[in-house]
Parts: sequence; structure tokens; C-alpha cells
Amino acid sequence: MTNGLRGGIDLGGAKVQAVVVDQEHRPLGTARGATPREGGPPAIAEAMTQALGEAARDAGVELSALQGVGACSPGDVDEATGVVTNAANLNGWAGVSFPLAEELGRRLGTTVRVGNDVNMATLGEFRLGAAKPYDSVLGVFWGTGVGGGLILDGKPWTGRGGAGEIGHTVVERHGRRCPCGNHGCMEAYAGRGAMERAAREAHEHGRKTRLFKLMEERGRDRLTSGLWERALDHGDKVAEELMDDAVDALGTAIGSAVNLLDVPAVVLGGGMGIRFAPRVRDDLQRHMLEHLFNKDDPPALLVAELGDLGGAIGAALLVLEGQGSDAAAPAPAT
Amino acid sequence: MTNGLRGGIDLGGAKVQAVVVDQEHRPLGTARGATPREGGPPAIAEAMTQALGEAARDAGVELSALQGVGACSPGDVDEATGVVTNAANLNGWAGVSFPLAEELGRRLGTTVRVGNDVNMATLGEFRLGAAKPYDSVLGVFWGTGVGGGLILDGKPWTGRGGAGEIGHTVVERHGRRCPCGNHGCMEAYAGRGAMERAAREAHEHGRKTRLFKLMEERGRDRLTSGLWERALDHGDKVAEELMDDAVDALGTAIGSAVNLLDVPAVVLGGGMGIRFAPRVRDDLQRHMLEHLFNKDDPPALLVAELGDLGGAIGAALLVLEGQGSDAAAPAPAT
Repeated sequence: MTNGLRGGIDLGGAKVQAVVVDQEHRPLGTARGATPREGGPPAIAEAMTQALGEAARDAGVELSALQGVGACSPGDVDEATGVVTNAANLNGWAGVSFPLAEELGRRLGTTVRVGNDVNMATLGEFRLGAAKPYDSVLGVFWGTGVGGGLILDGKPWTGRGGAGEIGHTVVERHGRRCPCGNHGCMEAYAGRGAMERAAREAHEHGRKTRLFKLMEERGRDRLTSGLWERALDHGDKVAEELMDDAVDALGTAIGSAVNLLDVPAVVLGGGMGIRFAPRVRDDLQRHMLEHLFNKDDPPALLVAELGDLGGAIGAALLVLEGQGSDAAAPAPAT
Repeated sequence: MTNGLRGGIDLGGAKVQAVVVDQEHRPLGTARGATPREGGPPAIAEAMTQALGEAARDAGVELSALQGVGACSPGDVDEATGVVTNAANLNGWAGVSFPLAEELGRRLGTTVRVGNDVNMATLGEFRLGAAKPYDSVLGVFWGTGVGGGLILDGKPWTGRGGAGEIGHTVVERHGRRCPCGNHGCMEAYAGRGAMERAAREAHEHGRKTRLFKLMEERGRDRLTSGLWERALDHGDKVAEELMDDAVDALGTAIGSAVNLLDVPAVVLGGGMGIRFAPRVRDDLQRHMLEHLFNKDDPPALLVAELGDLGGAIGAALLVLEGQGSDAAAPAPAT
């Protein structure tokens, strides 16, 4: 006797995206809010609650009509308990554990399950998006950092809870320092954050670039993917070089991962991935192929189809799938 | 009414190792032969047959008393059909398919199953050796090249048949050419074959090294792992530098693999791995840790326990486990 409506909330470093979906996973209502930069985890949980409330109003339904809510978060997510630890990019959450599922459940008056953000986005693409035809997939989410998710033989592979860190595949063992502190990680070349630092260094060393002028003109405090796109459209050499290097690093790390796992498909997502896929997909494929041990049968290189809503729609799957760690399990009756 | 005796044959580039094991996987008899350098796959199948015959005599049993035989081979192994394709290092087998299981079965008068060599060695360590306490493991077999095998949640992970190529994890994206033709693979720094080439180049460029003098004195045509050990014992600088670089590359690639898969254990095997583990294990651990994203809970770094017999004992497991691709399946009655 359920209407099959579910809520999904994607907690990101900059924004909270909420969605209400129907039985066919179609978004009936959406809402977006800024991730609070003060107040710590309780303020963030409140912003997530507000966003889902708005999405429900947008869909024209009551929160109490939802069958359940799934959320996804950065950091170390214990999917069994819904506790999120060390979501280092979020205010007040570095080195801290917070019972996110319980807090959201109390505020929303419903059962909430919480999963890891890139795992949920990968699951969304696997179940509903670009990777639907495949039984295994590597998800690569290219944004400020580069996250990864794995589905092997229909089931999320999370290892001991920390698998999927393709951004920290080494591409140059004595190379550039990564935001994580190690050297030569793919993210040190491909992450939007690392690209911005490299652009700033080039600028400080006298290289001409429009990037920071564009940033000022637009009143932004960071080089967004949109600003990178504008600079590339203007033929900015620094932007071109850094983008080429980022795509080289991405393709190299994907090649290494495919050599190890031999998955039939790779899905590229994330803010940078979705924006730049049309422009860089061929180069990415070329760099991946350069490093494949077996070049005869490369994996399909796909682009995420669920777009900005992928994390939230993927998270809403948690309501149907029980534990996020076992996507193949049938849904318990709720 | 079976005695539980099984045969195992490990086909390598230089040698064939055969074993007869009892129900407890203990070797009752062993034999070793050279891998034929002419005559192609039929001659190689005959040498494998001879070696198993000798192992049976060594064990004091008739071949007809064996419950079955498992074999393992380099190249692309179709475990369902026992056909081996493109075992490029073997005489007459490059680009060629050969029904190895069928040919061995005809010669031996018993059912033969064939698996991939590193997968079987990994399975052996997982079921019977160093990785017994774990439910997932990455096997790293360091020899002339560097092969890898994966067991995830108790089952071999072979992807579309070609998984496990950790030797072709990139460690320097614009780096040294690998025997596989790509650039910057770990094997290009760590494989015994690549190390020999690098030593030869250093020697030709005027670096002093005892390596090639030792090779002549011992009447060898290649730098065996034993020769590397002697050179290191003599404090040979070229050997030390190349070994340090090899261990750095191995640790880097293992770190990348652990970041992606978060397995609880890594087993180091292979001729080089077993010989040099006591000497390099700490450095290997250090290089792996340098590249781990999560340094709090590194995987156990284990050394293969089944030694030279690991491949053959692992292959003999195929008799019990049905398809090599599903180690968790119960044995069918035979």
C-alpha cells in the first residue's frame, strides 16, 4: 500500500542536493541549498533536512508520505550505523564522528540510511544510468578531488570500507604533492583543487592566463569548472596545458585500474567530468589505451547520465536496497 | 572410496613443476623438468605429462590412482574449456590457441583442469598458505615479470578473464618502456627481465658492476635471482640501485592497488619475491605506506609460504573446486 515515493539527499562540500523520486526513480521534486560553513554537523544535518523539505514541496507531497530517505556523504561512512567520520572538507567534521542517519531520522520522522557519496553515485549509474548494461563498473567522479566507486558482479565493492580511492592511484611515484599529503597521486594533477593550485603557481611564475581575471570578473573565490571552460574557450594556454595534463593523469590511473580489475565499463562523472566529457573523452580514451596491458578489448568509457542528481537518486536507492553494502539484496518490506 | 590423491602441474617459462598431493594438500612426490624450447605446445604438453609421471613415481603411486589433475599456465587461460591462448614466452605459443586440458587429459588418462598460473598461486596461498586468515587478498608474484592474482570475498576475481595485471600498474606515466610495450609500468622497473636490461645499459655506459662477471663465472645466460643476490652480498652499487628502484616501484603499485581495493592482505611470491623478501620486506612496506591514502590500517604484507610448489599445489586445488573461476563452489563428486 506504499506510493513508492522516496527521498534522496546528496551532501557535498559546497552544496546539498535533495530529490523526491517515484517508483521509477524519476525526480518529482528537487531542491538545492548551500552546505553551511559554520555550525558543524548539526547545522549541516539541518540544511539537509530543509533541502529535502523543499524538494517534497516541489513535488507536492508531504515528507510523511515518503517510504524512506537515503542520504550520501563524503568521509568514512559506516553504512550499518549511519555514522559519518572525518568528512574533512565539511565544517566541524574533520576528525569527528556524527550519527548522521539518526539525526536526519529524528528531524525527518522517517528511517534514513546513509552511504558514501561516490559509492551511491556509482550505484545510481549502475542501476539506473549509463552502466545499466554491465555487471561490473568503475565509477570515476572528477570534481574538486577525484573519487571512485566499484561495482563488481552486481555488488558494491568497498573492501574494508575504504575502497575506490582511484584519485590516489599513483601516476608519478616521485611526483607532485597531492592534497592528501602523498606524492604523485592522480588527483594531484587532475583534481580541480590541485589544478587551481598549479594555475596559481604558473601565474605567480609569470605565465599569462585569463583564469584569475575571469574569477574576479565573475566574483568567484575559486576556479569553478565553468571558469575553466571559459578559459579553454578563449584558448588560454595555461588552462589548456593543465587540462591536458589532468586528462593524461586520469587516463593513466583508469588504465592501471582496468589492468588490475578488467571491468567491462568505466563511468566518468562529477562536476568536471560531466562538463568536460564532450571535450576530453577522446583524449581520455587515448591515454587509457596507452596504458592498457590488453588493448584488444578496452572497457566501455561512459559518461554519467544522472548528472547533478546522480548522488541523490543513488542515495534514494538505499531505501530499496537495505544496506548500501549489498545492492543485490532484495528490499525488506517497510 | 577415493584416496584423495591429486596431481598438480605448474607450467613456467623455464621449468615445469609437478606435484602429487594428498587430501591434506601435502606433497607426497615432486618432479621438475625443463620447459621445451622447441616443438611448440605439443612438446610442452608432453614434458608436463612426463613431469607428473615422475612425481607419481616419487610418491610411489600410479597415475591412474589420482582423483584428477590440475595444471596452470601463463597466457590467456579459458578455465571453462582448458584452452590456452598466446602464452607468449613459450615456444610456438605466441598468438596460438592450444587445448591444453584436453591434450593433457588424453595423455594422462584423467580429467584435467587448467587455470591461470598466478591465479592458482594466489588461490594456493589463500586456501593453504600465508593468506589463510583473510577473506580477500592480492597476490603479487615477482619474477621475470610481475604477475598478480586477486581473491575478493573468498572468490577469485578475474574480471573478463584478464584481471590481476598489477605488473602493468603505471608508476611513472612517461617512464621507462616495459617489456609489454607500454611506458612506465611497475614491471619496467621491478621485473627481473627489465632489471637485467637496465643493468646491461648501465654496464655499457661504463658503470662498474660484478653482475655480468658473476653470470659468466656461473655459466648462466641471464641474471638469475641467485646472481642478483650474490652481487648484493658483494655490495655491488648497480645491483643495489636497481633493487632499491624495483622495490620502490613494487611498493608504489601495491599502494595504488590497495587504495582502489582496500584488501586486508597482500602476499608477495615469485622467484624474486621469495628470495628477496627477508632483505626488502621493510622497504617494500615503507614504499607501500608512502602511497596509501589511509595509513591507519595498512594491509598485512605477507610472504608466500608454499614456495616453489605454490603454483602446482594451487593448481591441484582445481580438482576439488570445479571451475577455477569459482573457488567457493563445493567440489562436485568425481
